[in-house]
Amino acid sequence: MSAIEAKLAALGLQLPAPTKLPQGVVLKFPWVRLHGNRAFVSGHGPLAPDGSLAGPFGKVGEDLTLEQAYQSAKLVGLAILSSLKAEIGDLDRVTAWLRVFGMVNAGKGFNRFPLVINGFSDLIVDLYGTERGNHARSAVGMAGLPFDIPIEIEAEVAIAS
Amino acid sequence: MSAIEAKLAALGLQLPAPTKLPQGVVLKFPWVRLHGNRAFVSGHGPLAPDGSLAGPFGKVGEDLTLEQAYQSAKLVGLAILSSLKAEIGDLDRVTAWLRVFGMVNAGKGFNRFPLVINGFSDLIVDLYGTERGNHARSAVGMAGLPFDIPIEIEAEVAIAS
Amino acid sequence: MSAIEAKLAALGLQLPAPTKLPQGVVLKFPWVRLHGNRAFVSGHGPLAPDGSLAGPFGKVGEDLTLEQAYQSAKLVGLAILSSLKAEIGDLDRVTAWLRVFGMVNAGKGFNRFPLVINGFSDLIVDLYGTERGNHARSAVGMAGLPFDIPIEIEAEVAIAS
Repeated sequence: MSAIEAKLAALGLQLPAPTKLPQGVVLKFPWVRLHGNRAFVSGHGPLAPDGSLAGPFGKVGEDLTLEQAYQSAKLVGLAILSSLKAEIGDLDRVTAWLRVFGMVNAGKGFNRFPLVINGFSDLIVDLYGTERGNHARSAVGMAGLPFDIPIEIEAEVAIAS
Repeated sequence: MSAIEAKLAALGLQLPAPTKLPQGVVLKFPWVRLHGNRAFVSGHGPLAPDGSLAGPFGKVGEDLTLEQAYQSAKLVGLAILSSLKAEIGDLDRVTAWLRVFGMVNAGKGFNRFPLVINGFSDLIVDLYGTERGNHARSAVGMAGLPFDIPIEIEAEVAIAS
Repeated sequence: MSAIEAKLAALGLQLPAPTKLPQGVVLKFPWVRLHGNRAFVSGHGPLAPDGSLAGPFGKVGEDLTLEQAYQSAKLVGLAILSSLKAEIGDLDRVTAWLRVFGMVNAGKGFNRFPLVINGFSDLIVDLYGTERGNHARSAVGMAGLPFDIPIEIEAEVAIAS
């Protein structure tokens, strides 16, 4: 078993199945685009174990509390790891997290976006350690996200050849 | 004629003239920034054939229907191809589409951003095929876009040396 | 003294101290993520000389004028230069500005985001010249930004080995 997957198991965490989109929605792009040693990760939402979009849905600060949004950002992390594993086979091949763009479905007056996206960053740094897991990051408020998911995150990571 | 331009012609599509900004607006940055084999594409809006910003303007779901927004996203694709051609000479030199960030001027309650940005992705994959044309993508809702354009897209592509 | 710092001094500009976050906020990610010749710059806000977040706070077009927002974007530029200097030692090591993503906390009906982010781009091009300083850019309106800062900018730059 890969070291990262062993850590996931030790934390009691499981990767979800690949994303299942709402019926009738067809997306003609991959969840991860590999190019040489670079992997570009498409914007992901939070997933349930079966790969369907996981609630609660809506705007953070209105429909979700900060704590619920933190958990949702952690689920986004697991969804991204699931997509990366499907593409590169072994999560240990990620040599560096580079850029993370954290998007929060912003309720009126809510502004603690960084504390929400920490749900993602804490997971990645716990799994990969600071040297590999550290990433440049923005955490900002969006007017809307697809299908009213509360969090969407896109990223770029470096991959061992 | 380049293969991509032949395909554009076969589809009955024409690249617009370079972007003409509204009077008095000066932008001190290039539409495409080349660096080695990487081309960074600035955020583009939809253009009319003469390079002026193309309407309809406003928020998707309020001022534009989904279908109008899809067409607008396709015009953004043509605008980006026009800028790339101006910078690299031949669109066949694009070896891989890597990252696409699709921004939709979000009307209240609208959330079908991916279906809008498909107007861009469908064009790129039609022209370049999946191997070269596939890209990591996000499609999200913005509080506002410059000059009330309905769609703005930025991207990164790989270029043959 | 480095050439860029000499220019800063000639312009009467000073880099702020490293970012001091509001009390109780812990962010587990670096302000700059280096990877080979690439430096990924996390989303930065405007800083006062002591590194605390600089006001005015709020939404551009409501709580700030365009001119105030332009100045705020310039402060974001100085904050990013401060973080880059802390990470790479000498600002002359930046060989190319590549990608700039400019986010504006959007007041209702405000749409002149590019003129706001020019406060950043003008500074960078003044300091680095067009060949090194030119960058692909988007300038767009967000529903909210952390701690109600009016501007947040993330970037990627190339670094000499």
